[in-house]
Amino acid sequence: MTTQQLTAQIQKKKSFLCIGLDVDLNKIPAHLLATEDPIFEFNKAIIDATHHLCVSYKPNTAFYEAYGLKGWKSLEKTINYLNTNYPEIFTIADAKRGDIGNTSTMYAKAFLDDLAFDSVTVAPYMGKDSVEPFLVFKNKHTIMLALTSNTGAFDFQTQQVEGKELYKHVLETSKTWENSENLMYVVGATKAEYFTEIRKIVPNSFLLVPGVGAQGGNLQDVCKYGLNDTVGLLINSSRGIIYAGNDKDFAIKAAAKALELQQQMEEILK
Amino acid sequence: MTTQQLTAQIQKKKSFLCIGLDVDLNKIPAHLLATEDPIFEFNKAIIDATHHLCVSYKPNTAFYEAYGLKGWKSLEKTINYLNTNYPEIFTIADAKRGDIGNTSTMYAKAFLDDLAFDSVTVAPYMGKDSVEPFLVFKNKHTIMLALTSNTGAFDFQTQQVEGKELYKHVLETSKTWENSENLMYVVGATKAEYFTEIRKIVPNSFLLVPGVGAQGGNLQDVCKYGLNDTVGLLINSSRGIIYAGNDKDFAIKAAAKALELQQQMEEILK
Repeated sequence: MTTQQLTAQIQKKKSFLCIGLDVDLNKIPAHLLATEDPIFEFNKAIIDATHHLCVSYKPNTAFYEAYGLKGWKSLEKTINYLNTNYPEIFTIADAKRGDIGNTSTMYAKAFLDDLAFDSVTVAPYMGKDSVEPFLVFKNKHTIMLALTSNTGAFDFQTQQVEGKELYKHVLETSKTWENSENLMYVVGATKAEYFTEIRKIVPNSFLLVPGVGAQGGNLQDVCKYGLNDTVGLLINSSRGIIYAGNDKDFAIKAAAKALELQQQMEEILK
Repeated sequence: MTTQQLTAQIQKKKSFLCIGLDVDLNKIPAHLLATEDPIFEFNKAIIDATHHLCVSYKPNTAFYEAYGLKGWKSLEKTINYLNTNYPEIFTIADAKRGDIGNTSTMYAKAFLDDLAFDSVTVAPYMGKDSVEPFLVFKNKHTIMLALTSNTGAFDFQTQQVEGKELYKHVLETSKTWENSENLMYVVGATKAEYFTEIRKIVPNSFLLVPGVGAQGGNLQDVCKYGLNDTVGLLINSSRGIIYAGNDKDFAIKAAAKALELQQQMEEILK
């Protein structure tokens, strides 16, 4: 998917919502546990109920790997379901990978080619040759961690490197990499005031913003400082939406929560 | 496994060799491709031929994920084979994971509990609360990236943060985390001269050292600067050993390469 197609979808749906599919078997409705693939059934119901309110889904790979082979199968079925039934949706494998070149190539192949996600999240610590193998895929996107939403972000990301914070150094350096136009960035919503500085460095890039809702971030603040001419934001909510209900009507309750966010976004886009 | 058990194994085998199981279907002997699970058959043959010469095996998860469900199954079979037949071996899931707390907990569960690896590699960019969930597992080990062996290491890891390189800041900060005694570190062999400085910060920690062989690192130099009283080094070689041969005698050729390294290590340990 191109960024133009993503922007067109945002304008059509009046939403820049991404729903995180972080499925924990301890948190899903009990009646699903009797099905052959509870994680997939949960995802399918959530997707069918919310696809018109969001532009993106983001399965976090940890929640699938935690269930071994069965989990990996649920992930495969989920992305296949999305690609088959909702091809307009921008899909994100939230994997936070990164390794030496030949290994990153294997990860890129796994997520962007074989599983056919539109994008994958990566970690920057190993630098250029750990990220560039992801960037070669045409019309695919690599979403690199810049400033994350957790407290540990202050351990290294905000440390001063040559007069500016490490995350700014990461943003600036990444712009020099080959095919850097295929980069997007993770920026946590819990730090809305940082968006002004970030937009000076990457004015045109899409930013994936976790931390709205369960982690305490504020949508209006993020948009105030983070929106650009083509919107340029994907706001992620996971637990706040998918666990809104815990009974047979869980998907309806999830849709209601997604609608709340979509309506706030529609208001902001006016 | 405790570090004392690992050290005892090193002394018994006169080896601190780790063999990287980075299995690429394009590189393994053709006759294995006809088997039901070529990756597992390859690993099994390599392990049976080399287990007395090394103390650790390190499958890199990228090479398994690249083959989807089948690859994940090969990984499961490989770790089960090791745990069943060679329980004295220190196993490393080279996964380079790291995410916010509840997500890191899922990764930790996947690799240390369900798959029952002795250790897993993690990336430090997201800080304390992304790593501590791995550290709570008793007699398990978390091997954090410090200074890697690729050229991209110079993009961020060696940048100056408050008067010292970022990787030193990472090492020092990590020592303050809860259960930090369960930390080991990845330090690339291509930068032997850095070991002196690193040993000042983490004199007693085990260091996992990739980059000997295919990536150009020198064993003698690494040992000169990196050995401590309890050895404290795991030297990894992947391609140099497992692809030493490409015919029916591939495991014998791999064992010959492993023996070369083990003999050099025995000499160094004298």
